[in-house]
Amino acid sequence: MVEFTVFKGSKEGKIVQSKTTRELKHDEVLIKVTHSGVCGTDEHYRKVDMALGHEGAGVVEEVGASVKTYRKGDSVGWGYQHNSCNHCKQCLTGHETLCPERALYGSADLDQGSFATHGVWKADYIFRIPDSIPREFAAPLQCGGATVFNVLHSFNVKPTHRIGIIGIGGLGHLAIQFAAKMGCEVVVFSSTDSKKEEATGLGASEFVATKGVSELQLSRPIDHLLVTTSAQPDWKLFLPIMSPGGAIYPLSVDSGNFTIPYMPLIAGELKVQGSLVAARDVQNEMLAFAAHHQIRPIVEKFPMSAEGITEAMAKLAEGNVRYRAVLVAQ
Amino acid sequence: MVEFTVFKGSKEGKIVQSKTTRELKHDEVLIKVTHSGVCGTDEHYRKVDMALGHEGAGVVEEVGASVKTYRKGDSVGWGYQHNSCNHCKQCLTGHETLCPERALYGSADLDQGSFATHGVWKADYIFRIPDSIPREFAAPLQCGGATVFNVLHSFNVKPTHRIGIIGIGGLGHLAIQFAAKMGCEVVVFSSTDSKKEEATGLGASEFVATKGVSELQLSRPIDHLLVTTSAQPDWKLFLPIMSPGGAIYPLSVDSGNFTIPYMPLIAGELKVQGSLVAARDVQNEMLAFAAHHQIRPIVEKFPMSAEGITEAMAKLAEGNVRYRAVLVAQ
Repeated sequence: MVEFTVFKGSKEGKIVQSKTTRELKHDEVLIKVTHSGVCGTDEHYRKVDMALGHEGAGVVEEVGASVKTYRKGDSVGWGYQHNSCNHCKQCLTGHETLCPERALYGSADLDQGSFATHGVWKADYIFRIPDSIPREFAAPLQCGGATVFNVLHSFNVKPTHRIGIIGIGGLGHLAIQFAAKMGCEVVVFSSTDSKKEEATGLGASEFVATKGVSELQLSRPIDHLLVTTSAQPDWKLFLPIMSPGGAIYPLSVDSGNFTIPYMPLIAGELKVQGSLVAARDVQNEMLAFAAHHQIRPIVEKFPMSAEGITEAMAKLAEGNVRYRAVLVAQ
Repeated sequence: MVEFTVFKGSKEGKIVQSKTTRELKHDEVLIKVTHSGVCGTDEHYRKVDMALGHEGAGVVEEVGASVKTYRKGDSVGWGYQHNSCNHCKQCLTGHETLCPERALYGSADLDQGSFATHGVWKADYIFRIPDSIPREFAAPLQCGGATVFNVLHSFNVKPTHRIGIIGIGGLGHLAIQFAAKMGCEVVVFSSTDSKKEEATGLGASEFVATKGVSELQLSRPIDHLLVTTSAQPDWKLFLPIMSPGGAIYPLSVDSGNFTIPYMPLIAGELKVQGSLVAARDVQNEMLAFAAHHQIRPIVEKFPMSAEGITEAMAKLAEGNVRYRAVLVAQ
């Protein structure tokens, strides 16, 4: 049996330090957490009595009896999904994120997360971190990176396409880098010009400030539009700049409805494509691509403690993190 | 110059008989109309001072000086699109229905339509009707058939997929036949059981009455859902029966918003795909497929006259046409 510290949400929204005890099963790995990203989805579970965090990076400390793929000392990460059935249609076709029995953050393994000193995770659902990616950068790739890479990798994006990215935060600043390195023209939409220079440095070829604007001026229309902001965009602004047959990807979490003007959708044969994190093969491709192109999140570090987590989450909630908060083991 | 009779909408919604005069240009064809389908979209233009009808079938009466593809006597049809620029990205890739300069019913050629004795149309935008398809059946294929076939042909539908069709009307009864002949399992959703026998006869393998039901019971989920009703479906009923990664196609015309619960879209990686009629290559494939499989609309005939059109449109507006009204030249 192993015992370790986790940090949980609570009814009052206070971050609570707690202990978890787990048996290390034959197909599992005990990971010593060195870093964890802090994602907007963590905020959604802050008032739930569960261990938080799903952008983990750390070092393998012990492996179960039947684990052949990892050894003590390996640098590994894990993200939003912990398990799946391995025999349904989705699992058999590399879409295990859509498995009806999928174990996802927020609904499974509520006793442990990446806001912790350690975690015990199924070996088949963790990821080897390439040597050239320091773990403080690998952590935010496990969910934020996976989420935007999945769109760019899985839905027929071509290097000749123009990618629009609404919002430059944890997701947006990674999407800019991935899309630019894929050869795409990247158009970034942000409320003001305050992040223009950084967006350009990350690979944006065009930058559009949207606040108070009644019409968007672009050199050419957008083929794929990634919505990374929590607020839904003003479609009267964005639909006129979509290419015929273009695609829209809402990526944040929202409890309400998705609403879009009906006729422009039909007349332009636009597509609204839901996309959730990345299946394991996509996650591996993402890590390899990030390593090859030296794609790195821009991070702000906080200590892995109740105080550090509270501070990081407060800053995230205020929209002031540039661009991903990372907790560092003490 | 040629002069012919057209039937127009009017401010009061009365069908008005009128005359149109056209010059037959070098790249155009004069068609004597023998049949026209009556589509829900005609109803939308009933109160506009324009010639109605966009599901035409007839016989070539005369060809312009440079037309080599048609001769007097050929059986031809035409539909929703009349022209495009031929040089934009969409035109160059076989997606001319999305050309920014496309000439579509309702916005171009308002002086003529298929509710008429004749029409003068660009030869490149009419379609040869296979010999085995009588024109009374070919007419409704030009828009209704094209609309549903485009979904089944252009968006990665496979013969192993399960197709859901909401509504059995002008579009739905053709969609059932096309999908069944493509090898797909076809699940039809209708408010009551009244059309069950006909749906089954057309190729439906499963039939679900939805009125007053709080949960839909299906043997397996749906991969592609075609919404052919003008009312939007109750998503609380339909989202639980969608396959992960499944696609939804809203096909009717609606002036408002398209609204769907946000999280099921993301968590199931569902896709909402806009689709407008068919590009010309798709239209030709549709006609060949219909000929090969003897796919025919079920039609109710009315005379091509102000009275006949008024009667057909009234019956369509009441939802009582089974399943496509066709006007027949007198």
